[in-house]
Amino acid sequence: MTKLLDTIRGPEDLQALTQDELARLAEEIRQVITHSVSRTGGHLASNLGVVELTLAMHRAFDFHRDRLLWDVGHQCYAHKILTGRVAMFEQLRQEGGLSGFPSPDESDCDPFSVGHAGTSIATALGMALGAQHKGTDEKIVALIGDASIVNGLSFEALNNLGLVKRQLLIVLNDNSMAIDVTQGAMAGFLSKVRLSHTYEDMRKITNRMLDHLPLIGRRMEETLENVKKTLRMAITPSRLFESLNIPYFGPVDGHDTTSLIELFKALGELDRPALLHVYTKKGRGYSPADDDPCKYHSTGPFELNGDSETPTQGVRTFTEAFGDGLVELAARDDKIVALTAAMPDGTGLVKFRQRFNERYYDVGIAESVAVDIAAGMARQGFKPVVCIYSTFLQRSFDQIFQEVSLQNLPVIFCIDRAGAVGNDGPTHHGLWDVGYLRMLPNLVIAAPADEWEMRESLNLAAASGNPFAIRYPKEAVPDEPYAAHIPYALGQSAVVRQGESDVVLLALGSPVGQALKAADLLEREGISVTVVNARFAKPLDESLLDWFRAGKTVLTLEDHTIACGFGSALIEAALCKANAEDDEALAAGIGKAILLGAKDEYLPAAARGKQLFWMQITAEQIAQTVKNLKLQPKKVDS
Amino acid sequence: MTKLLDTIRGPEDLQALTQDELARLAEEIRQVITHSVSRTGGHLASNLGVVELTLAMHRAFDFHRDRLLWDVGHQCYAHKILTGRVAMFEQLRQEGGLSGFPSPDESDCDPFSVGHAGTSIATALGMALGAQHKGTDEKIVALIGDASIVNGLSFEALNNLGLVKRQLLIVLNDNSMAIDVTQGAMAGFLSKVRLSHTYEDMRKITNRMLDHLPLIGRRMEETLENVKKTLRMAITPSRLFESLNIPYFGPVDGHDTTSLIELFKALGELDRPALLHVYTKKGRGYSPADDDPCKYHSTGPFELNGDSETPTQGVRTFTEAFGDGLVELAARDDKIVALTAAMPDGTGLVKFRQRFNERYYDVGIAESVAVDIAAGMARQGFKPVVCIYSTFLQRSFDQIFQEVSLQNLPVIFCIDRAGAVGNDGPTHHGLWDVGYLRMLPNLVIAAPADEWEMRESLNLAAASGNPFAIRYPKEAVPDEPYAAHIPYALGQSAVVRQGESDVVLLALGSPVGQALKAADLLEREGISVTVVNARFAKPLDESLLDWFRAGKTVLTLEDHTIACGFGSALIEAALCKANAEDDEALAAGIGKAILLGAKDEYLPAAARGKQLFWMQITAEQIAQTVKNLKLQPKKVDS
Repeated sequence: MTKLLDTIRGPEDLQALTQDELARLAEEIRQVITHSVSRTGGHLASNLGVVELTLAMHRAFDFHRDRLLWDVGHQCYAHKILTGRVAMFEQLRQEGGLSGFPSPDESDCDPFSVGHAGTSIATALGMALGAQHKGTDEKIVALIGDASIVNGLSFEALNNLGLVKRQLLIVLNDNSMAIDVTQGAMAGFLSKVRLSHTYEDMRKITNRMLDHLPLIGRRMEETLENVKKTLRMAITPSRLFESLNIPYFGPVDGHDTTSLIELFKALGELDRPALLHVYTKKGRGYSPADDDPCKYHSTGPFELNGDSETPTQGVRTFTEAFGDGLVELAARDDKIVALTAAMPDGTGLVKFRQRFNERYYDVGIAESVAVDIAAGMARQGFKPVVCIYSTFLQRSFDQIFQEVSLQNLPVIFCIDRAGAVGNDGPTHHGLWDVGYLRMLPNLVIAAPADEWEMRESLNLAAASGNPFAIRYPKEAVPDEPYAAHIPYALGQSAVVRQGESDVVLLALGSPVGQALKAADLLEREGISVTVVNARFAKPLDESLLDWFRAGKTVLTLEDHTIACGFGSALIEAALCKANAEDDEALAAGIGKAILLGAKDEYLPAAARGKQLFWMQITAEQIAQTVKNLKLQPKKVDS
Repeated sequence: MTKLLDTIRGPEDLQALTQDELARLAEEIRQVITHSVSRTGGHLASNLGVVELTLAMHRAFDFHRDRLLWDVGHQCYAHKILTGRVAMFEQLRQEGGLSGFPSPDESDCDPFSVGHAGTSIATALGMALGAQHKGTDEKIVALIGDASIVNGLSFEALNNLGLVKRQLLIVLNDNSMAIDVTQGAMAGFLSKVRLSHTYEDMRKITNRMLDHLPLIGRRMEETLENVKKTLRMAITPSRLFESLNIPYFGPVDGHDTTSLIELFKALGELDRPALLHVYTKKGRGYSPADDDPCKYHSTGPFELNGDSETPTQGVRTFTEAFGDGLVELAARDDKIVALTAAMPDGTGLVKFRQRFNERYYDVGIAESVAVDIAAGMARQGFKPVVCIYSTFLQRSFDQIFQEVSLQNLPVIFCIDRAGAVGNDGPTHHGLWDVGYLRMLPNLVIAAPADEWEMRESLNLAAASGNPFAIRYPKEAVPDEPYAAHIPYALGQSAVVRQGESDVVLLALGSPVGQALKAADLLEREGISVTVVNARFAKPLDESLLDWFRAGKTVLTLEDHTIACGFGSALIEAALCKANAEDDEALAAGIGKAILLGAKDEYLPAAARGKQLFWMQITAEQIAQTVKNLKLQPKKVDS
């Protein structure tokens, strides 16, 4: 089934293949990708779209020495398959297996671990400057999609491209999502370029470029001028890129491997930065993905039965709970508007968009401006709900500070994928949001532990008039609320289980579930612990300090780094209070606290449950930690 | 001297003025600005450049109701003078006085507090969407300079401008710095536009626009098309903005108040976003600033003697110590390259640029890409030194995470203006960098307390092979090093004064000086305290935990928020260690710690010394805190 692929030990083995063999190899690679993603989950459509492009790049360049920078990196599967990693491909996104993103740990063909958008041109620019200083002649290639090039970071890099006085090729992978899906002026511009060319035009453009571009770097200046003149006559000049003084070539067919190889070889000889505009088709070659590339952008495991498939997961998630809660809230409150940065599905906004399309904004992969637009709308009296994954919201840190926290505007941040994210791995964890948000004055940080709390926190946020962050993980919500009888009020925690011993499990957000399971396990061994749902990381419930005053051993449990996390906030608050009020009992109790959460290291890709294990916050580990406490015997007779 | 200005109680009083009176008023405003800045410090040249522009905007719009969004906001002095704040102008940037930036607390004419670049179009976009939803017809105007428009946030906003289906005017204030100073393709583009037009052209363009633009909003569609066609024939079409589907008007003379008023009135009637390109001259009307606008961009107080001036301050700063240290390091190590984001003066890079121009990069106001370029260069074997103020480095948080910390690349961050910044106020404090950086694995965070430590930390950073942050305040360095005899080694603190009592003052960075002064004050009262220079916020010196074990009362002192700061890190480390090693002495000692630093609030503009007072870390306050300790009597007999 993958006869040809079995002979490819590395990209160097592509050199001997004929045109026909390359086409067969492309099909074999598609089989491997489709088969694996059906089992492991991952990005399907985008990877199927760049198979020929990847083959052509590897045939034209030597990425052991030349440098290939991927943007976001979710479309690197064919690249992995061709660079000695096909045997590992069945373990894609699994613990101990291959990352779903480029990773220097896996191959010398991956210069950077990536996962966020807009970095490829920026880092390529840095690598090109490095080569320029050293005088080395490796080719540098940045591959970027039409969705990523609109990110502010990409623009800042394009604006600074003039620093580079040597070769640097930007390949703009325009995968036809632009017209229908991607928002913004750049998308409009690209779709205009697209609509103005037939397939026949693309052939002509390719041929003209190949006629004029030198395969060997001689008479460069003159030749480049000729090519540009010819292209300028042939096609709508790409005014945007040329305004920024970036030589533009294209558009060309991204599935024509043979031409692409020649184009890459020729453009690799240029002595200055240039951009090649390539059209590809998302999901090419797999019919359901071909028909509905959106659905197959990133997928959990699905079953492959001919061309039909069924998702294997069906649990209700925090994301869905949020999505439904928001629709209910928006039905009651017409000041609610929602914004996202190119992730309406992932953040659960699809129902909102359907029902309140006129109050829905997708700004593309542009997290920074999403927050500032929200701030502007809040200043106009609206209650904007900004829906961005925890890891990507890092891009908006400065905007959250200046445009939201400093102005004390009622922007609501709904932070999905907070905590460990599972198989996407270290580029995508949401383990720092409590830290970077709790330093900012005026912010409220809530962490609902169940669906009831999700709705309550949304309602509270809408009523509060303050900046309000709600964080929740990529996880199923529990079937029942933990403590719906305890009113949900700003900065108030809830004792969800009263124990007899001196041990208190104090959890923020979804770890409440693990804490309750731990309490059950301990109960069976005769140890009765108290479980408290913190509900808020900020403002902190001052009554939590009473546990210290009472000499309890408090274990803080959070799906966050220990550094700067909820436990850290609690201890800071306790020390400041103890000092301000000269409260010796409080001071004495603090040293008994045990802070549990992520340590100072990157958690690799694995099941989320395994990552919680590494953080020592699974129920079994919590129970064991309690059993290890020396205090235990004393507690039995208290 | 300011006869006309004295009659202006608010912008509404401008309506009655004649053309001549407006010109006289402009001169009076220039006098007030020049006189005040000479006493209080502030931005001179940029404010002198926009006097006519500001007058024209206030005459054409009513900013009690219409909304004016400033970018960065340092050029808002004339606006403040015209909006009822002239009487307060002598207290510009002083405690209890006027902010040097727009501030909603001061006037209903200021919708946002700003200070960082690239926010004006973004927030204007949000405000326009809000108005669109509400159906209100206030005009919305964003004023942005050519230096700010290159920021990625500006681009993200421009790319999303199509969301707005109503009036929104962007005024691009192109102040002629572009050709010589601002870097990048956008600057090149703007300078090309500028060079292609004579002053006479600008007059013609203005007249053509005024002929065609309707003063009342009728036959808009048709008229707009006519204007655009006329302009397109008359001038090089602004391809960049038109590629992004943004109607472009200009360039026009930004000192021709009469024409500007008419243009603003006409463009205010457009029913869609548009951009007006205005040329102004920085420093206009004040001859030294006119000649050397760079020098007068932001200035401390200077003396006004006719046209000459003398800076009143002459102390050696951390910035200068860094600048000289870097030059020395770079002379020895040819892998050192330096990057900044439009602040070579402020970050002390001028000497480096003079001596090693080929290793110096200024990417413009684009902090995010600066970090990614550095990461790319580090991957190529260089040791990039990224010089950005603490507050602006917040823009790079996600890049520091993914491109530097996750890859563990040896990028050196030299973080000036860390801590309280004094008169620039809350938009500019650097009070969170320890927090947002210490969560990131692999990073080292050093805080030199004197010039010797600055050099040692630079040398250590260059030798370390890790990401390495060095933070230091806007302050004078002490005349002598505190403890040059104690070797400077990674993660090691230094006892700079051994005391007899049980009190330890543990300071990070420049507060070491306050701690030593406090120790002197206490000595006079018979209390002998130990003073420790932490030197590093990460990795923490584990031997610091011995102070807890020994039952000492440790006061942590830092020029940072208590939240997530150095003290917080120390307590986290102590708790984790005590728990892991079952160290009861350590656990018992933690509760005695006293964390001092900034609280959860915004510190207003004031002298930096006053802000340290609010943080309770002046020498006198530290001494008083120690004297208040109940532990004191016990210590005397220990």
